[in-house]
Amino acid sequence: MEYVALIIYDIRDNKLRLEVSRFLKRVGLTRIQKSAFAGSVRPSDKANIEAGLRKIIRGWSNYNIQIYIISSSVYSQRVVLSEGYSLEEEEEEFLI
Amino acid sequence: MEYVALIIYDIRDNKLRLEVSRFLKRVGLTRIQKSAFAGSVRPSDKANIEAGLRKIIRGWSNYNIQIYIISSSVYSQRVVLSEGYSLEEEEEEFLI
Repeated sequence: MEYVALIIYDIRDNKLRLEVSRFLKRVGLTRIQKSAFAGSVRPSDKANIEAGLRKIIRGWSNYNIQIYIISSSVYSQRVVLSEGYSLEEEEEEFLI
Repeated sequence: MEYVALIIYDIRDNKLRLEVSRFLKRVGLTRIQKSAFAGSVRPSDKANIEAGLRKIIRGWSNYNIQIYIISSSVYSQRVVLSEGYSLEEEEEEFLI
């Protein structure tokens, strides 16, 4: 069975938010919304992603990060309603 | 089998974002992050939620809304990393 990690976050601090998003890219996930990443994972990846995030957030406050491991078939059955939505613009805003 | 609807959104316009969040509350979902709601649903609720959202977003642009229907057991296995996170504050910000 194939799995997808879906990670959604709400992080107050710009620097921490950028660190988290860079980490999620580095482990191979793709940004699907301004504050959400998804990507195929092996079951063993879950612990690594969680451990990596725990390391990054240590000492910080004002954050909520949620990790969902769902089957690829459930992921592919998601409904996406989208219009005139550009993720590139949003990513640049993080750097301002 | 019991199901949970997980809805994440990225909506540029304040008014549309507020309308969407009020709709999601009205159908019985709970805000779990600034831009994410979740709650138990019957399989038949999925179409109603999707139809309601499609009605609200008609004519709007600059949005991305994703609906995931996952089993309750997958939902309960999510990992939540959270510290000093207050959702109430975030909700008030929408009204400014």
